[in-house]
Amino acid sequence: MDRPSWVGALQPTEPCGSALLARERQGSTLNTDEVANYIYTEQGLQRQGRLLRILENDAVFDKTQNYFEDRVERYKRSLRRAKRLAQLNKAHHWDEEDLLAAIELVGEPTSFTLHWTMFIPTIRQQGTLEQHDLFLKKAENLDIIGCYAQTELGHGSNVRGLETTATWSPVDRAFILNSPALTASKWWIGTLGRTANHAIVMAQLIIDGKNHGPHPFICQIRDLITHEPLEGVYVGDVGPKMGYNTMDNGFLLFKKVKIPHVNMLARFARVDPQSGRYVKPASPALVYGTLTMLRSSIVLDAGRALARGATIATRYCAIRRQFSDRDQPIQTEELQVLDYPMVQNRLFPLIATAFAMHITGTAMMALYKRASESLPGGNASSDDDGHSQSRQLFAELHATSCGLKALATTAAAEGLEVARRACGGHGYSSFSGIGPWYADYVPTTTWEGDNFMLTLQVAKYSLGVARDALGGKPPHNATSSNLSRFHALRGRGCRRYDLSRDEHVVEAFAWRAADMTFKTLRRRDEDGASWKSLQVDCWRLSTAHSQYLAVKAFYDDLTSAKTRQALNAESREILWKLFRLYSLVVIEMAAHEFYTSSALKVGQVEEAIHTTKPRLLAELRPHAVRLVDAWRLPDWLLDSSLGRYDGRVYEDLFFRATQLNPLNRFTPSLGKEDAGVGPNSGIGKSRL
Amino acid sequence: MDRPSWVGALQPTEPCGSALLARERQGSTLNTDEVANYIYTEQGLQRQGRLLRILENDAVFDKTQNYFEDRVERYKRSLRRAKRLAQLNKAHHWDEEDLLAAIELVGEPTSFTLHWTMFIPTIRQQGTLEQHDLFLKKAENLDIIGCYAQTELGHGSNVRGLETTATWSPVDRAFILNSPALTASKWWIGTLGRTANHAIVMAQLIIDGKNHGPHPFICQIRDLITHEPLEGVYVGDVGPKMGYNTMDNGFLLFKKVKIPHVNMLARFARVDPQSGRYVKPASPALVYGTLTMLRSSIVLDAGRALARGATIATRYCAIRRQFSDRDQPIQTEELQVLDYPMVQNRLFPLIATAFAMHITGTAMMALYKRASESLPGGNASSDDDGHSQSRQLFAELHATSCGLKALATTAAAEGLEVARRACGGHGYSSFSGIGPWYADYVPTTTWEGDNFMLTLQVAKYSLGVARDALGGKPPHNATSSNLSRFHALRGRGCRRYDLSRDEHVVEAFAWRAADMTFKTLRRRDEDGASWKSLQVDCWRLSTAHSQYLAVKAFYDDLTSAKTRQALNAESREILWKLFRLYSLVVIEMAAHEFYTSSALKVGQVEEAIHTTKPRLLAELRPHAVRLVDAWRLPDWLLDSSLGRYDGRVYEDLFFRATQLNPLNRFTPSLGKEDAGVGPNSGIGKSRL
Repeated sequence: MDRPSWVGALQPTEPCGSALLARERQGSTLNTDEVANYIYTEQGLQRQGRLLRILENDAVFDKTQNYFEDRVERYKRSLRRAKRLAQLNKAHHWDEEDLLAAIELVGEPTSFTLHWTMFIPTIRQQGTLEQHDLFLKKAENLDIIGCYAQTELGHGSNVRGLETTATWSPVDRAFILNSPALTASKWWIGTLGRTANHAIVMAQLIIDGKNHGPHPFICQIRDLITHEPLEGVYVGDVGPKMGYNTMDNGFLLFKKVKIPHVNMLARFARVDPQSGRYVKPASPALVYGTLTMLRSSIVLDAGRALARGATIATRYCAIRRQFSDRDQPIQTEELQVLDYPMVQNRLFPLIATAFAMHITGTAMMALYKRASESLPGGNASSDDDGHSQSRQLFAELHATSCGLKALATTAAAEGLEVARRACGGHGYSSFSGIGPWYADYVPTTTWEGDNFMLTLQVAKYSLGVARDALGGKPPHNATSSNLSRFHALRGRGCRRYDLSRDEHVVEAFAWRAADMTFKTLRRRDEDGASWKSLQVDCWRLSTAHSQYLAVKAFYDDLTSAKTRQALNAESREILWKLFRLYSLVVIEMAAHEFYTSSALKVGQVEEAIHTTKPRLLAELRPHAVRLVDAWRLPDWLLDSSLGRYDGRVYEDLFFRATQLNPLNRFTPSLGKEDAGVGPNSGIGKSRL
Repeated sequence: MDRPSWVGALQPTEPCGSALLARERQGSTLNTDEVANYIYTEQGLQRQGRLLRILENDAVFDKTQNYFEDRVERYKRSLRRAKRLAQLNKAHHWDEEDLLAAIELVGEPTSFTLHWTMFIPTIRQQGTLEQHDLFLKKAENLDIIGCYAQTELGHGSNVRGLETTATWSPVDRAFILNSPALTASKWWIGTLGRTANHAIVMAQLIIDGKNHGPHPFICQIRDLITHEPLEGVYVGDVGPKMGYNTMDNGFLLFKKVKIPHVNMLARFARVDPQSGRYVKPASPALVYGTLTMLRSSIVLDAGRALARGATIATRYCAIRRQFSDRDQPIQTEELQVLDYPMVQNRLFPLIATAFAMHITGTAMMALYKRASESLPGGNASSDDDGHSQSRQLFAELHATSCGLKALATTAAAEGLEVARRACGGHGYSSFSGIGPWYADYVPTTTWEGDNFMLTLQVAKYSLGVARDALGGKPPHNATSSNLSRFHALRGRGCRRYDLSRDEHVVEAFAWRAADMTFKTLRRRDEDGASWKSLQVDCWRLSTAHSQYLAVKAFYDDLTSAKTRQALNAESREILWKLFRLYSLVVIEMAAHEFYTSSALKVGQVEEAIHTTKPRLLAELRPHAVRLVDAWRLPDWLLDSSLGRYDGRVYEDLFFRATQLNPLNRFTPSLGKEDAGVGPNSGIGKSRL
């Protein structure tokens, strides 16, 4: 449809978005460069700038059709982009962090990502040198493309329950992969659906009819030339999803497929080819190590993930205007929506949570690195034998990373929906950029351990530590010392923590978590409650424990010398307000738990909710736009009309709708079956 | 890709889904027919059965490609379906309820829906008899297709802020529609994008430079033969959305478009064509009437909307199995996920909320009907002059319908996401049926009044009533009598409500709501807080008030003679458990408010959370599947692999992925730009 000339002359009414955002940025002196360096380090920001210049100007990564194309088109385009990323990776000699940052900026799950982040690392960590020679080089050259196939149609978190079998055949010294049932079909496996020609398959290892549990096997599944599935392999894509539709999540079934002995990844557990004897794996420190690292990075990323929604919504709510102030003469200009306390009450806690999760994730990563270096060989993945103190440390890190992953990803996912709805009607448009991002992000709450299942591990660990504390033999770690201290003090009445003192806030969170731990322990050990019946208590306990860790990490960071150097007094004071806001929001939601643990009194919470919180929101209001600016999320990443840095919201919505939208190229013409409105349109005539 | 023969032989492992659901249904004697009749009435169920037989067997409504087609295809197909619905509507002489029920069963927003539910009713209610002759008949014959164009690119809830103008031109006795700015563009208008050839346009009426505020004008926008936009009209589709993609939400700009005097809908306000004098509208009772009816039906529908998610998740969680009981020997069969208290804690409150919202909506509709009949002329839409008591009643109905709409749609939308995630990984698949439904349903939280804006109206009303109560001249309605009673009793210390007595539960909710009302009133009238600064309090107050109304409606229904007749003792006892569960969940979330109002003590809530609630969940567990069965949601409506009545979940997921999924027809072939994996795949060669 041609655009009439008179339309081109139309402008948004004044004050326009650009003017309003400029006004916002003038209204605060928060140093966004300083805060951005604090969040990412200078090096991190330089990396983003460098990569952005390369990617943004490469036609392969042109995003203008992303919101319009159907799934098949998006997959094809995404595959082209994956290849281009591989080319650039080579050409610019990117390191791993460069590649991951580039993938994030491209902003869609691409088919090679899991090849790089799961297939190659698994071979590297769990393969022998011989297996490295056989598979690693080819994989690094992309001569083979692989995926990691664990989950099955009928089996998720419980790896023990997997049905796929790898049976050792002594006669031909090979393993036979087989899918005994429909529910044994591998399912959800990223890159498997259309792209991969190899898979690392988790299968039950069977020797002489004895099941030794799930182990990893490398298996070629498609021909390297024709790309057709090999004999005995049935493989394909599992279908459309809420998001992640550029990714070909796949299914995989085996009919007695024979793979050589060398295809079982054998660095830790292996089968002796001569005797067929099973040789046991080394300590689980390894598993702790890699998964803990992964989960800590998920916590870290949750901050930026949520900041995307907070940035878009905060900028748009500074531009969107509705209703004039009821207490003012009716003629006044409509208020910026961001001036509504109800909107501040929804958005500013998201900004605070983004910082809290980012800071907590950073602390976790650092702690993990220090712990790894403390290990013999300085590597968490090495066989750690009886180094009990660092093993205790890793157990702690494992548990806390589980709890924090659950806390952070749930907060980020749900926060994104809060941000989207805070944009009102336009939040529903794909052009808002929040909905599509929510759809891509939300599975993070389910994978790498379902958030609810993970909390059970946290509780199990905390109860164990609490038992040791009661038994007078506490391990050497934070959880333990907190529980011991609580155990010594409890029963001495209300704690009278003063919420106006930040260190007391942290104490109140510690107290609540410890109280819930011992109460749950009593239900289990004294009242003899079944483990199953304690699930809800465990989830509450894990949440409380993780919130304590987040508040503590936030507090420790703001009081650290490093941060006092990095940030000027004003920046720090604003971050302290975010610390207080985050804490208050949790206290408000979990008020009952703070009372029953007698950490706080009802009156204190009432004051926090009705006096302190509104004051904090008002104090943060002038800095809101600069606070999200500090996250340095490029327009190209956000791909959002509402979140544009320059505030040209309505121009952009209009441009995308009128110039990019393919539906406007279709005009229902009369009489045809696919059209027919108006007279003689065939209403009343049957079409089939 | 051909399916190898050996795949056909594979079955899910035992016990399969069908067996498990059969076991569930045998495990409870809840009479689902009886409960279904109670929910829908026998007539309602018969209607659904009758319509289902017609629609399910009509190839136009075949749903198998819905989850795969792109937006243009979906719009075209949806238009065909709209036409077929029109044909069937005629052929079967459907009444309005039949048509709406048929539209719901088809399960997608179709382009004629708003023509039927907004365009035609608006002409009927706001048009004169002359205008009925001119437009209504043509509209009913679908010779013209219309939409209702109010919202603008820069203006949502605040109708006063609309920019589109209709200027009276005395010389040619016509109105001139004009869009002075880009932000004046009509936006989000359903059916406008590609389908409609007429629009009811809300525009500022300007006479002699004086603005008389927004009024409705009928305007033809497209040629009835060529379907091309008329001179001075720029119209099109606004682009893809999170959901609702079968609907062509549109934009519309006018360049001085002249429409005759008769095109201003003139039943209430009009312009005298001779003198150009503006004639004022009648009482606002009309607005109350129609909007209240609409909102009450949204509350009612929220119950069934949420029941869709609860049905799918409950059935699937009865089939999905994971982990064996830690307190049992490891060998035991994996547990049904529905046996996990953590899952019950997420799902059963959704079932309880679905019933609560359905019952509350039904009560609202009934109350509204009675109130309308009490009006002179027995019709809320008639010009109501000074019939003060029924006007007070309508004011009350209006406010409560606002609060309940916000409460019910937020609960339903957020509950759907809870249900989807409770399905674990498979919940993310489009085939779960929950994600797509959530995407279509969630805008209900924003339109017909943004849920947060609506709560301000409730608070404004409640504060007014509270003032009258203090002033000793309370109006005659429920809110008022509750507030007066509270005012008389307050300050007499804690209420000591006994949560084991259902009537006390209702009392505790009433008390909490009244307490918050007077506290907010004091902040406004005594402390002189600005209206803006009270937004968060108003939102909390509205929520508390609406939850009280819901709990009261639930209680009144279960104690009514009608229900005691309709349901046997067992069914009633199970519904009482749902009543208690719904109340407890609210009390748990809002514990702090029940304390500060001294309606409840901390110990009571602690017992409710740790003793009563787990017991209720356990007691409801055996009836869960039958409780969702009672909602009688046809498989054809749910369109869900996970929610199938027959439990063949894995077979259906596998069938859709392998037999319906178009991505599996695309094989990346080597060397081509859109492919290229494996050796010589062009990695390293530049593509552009």
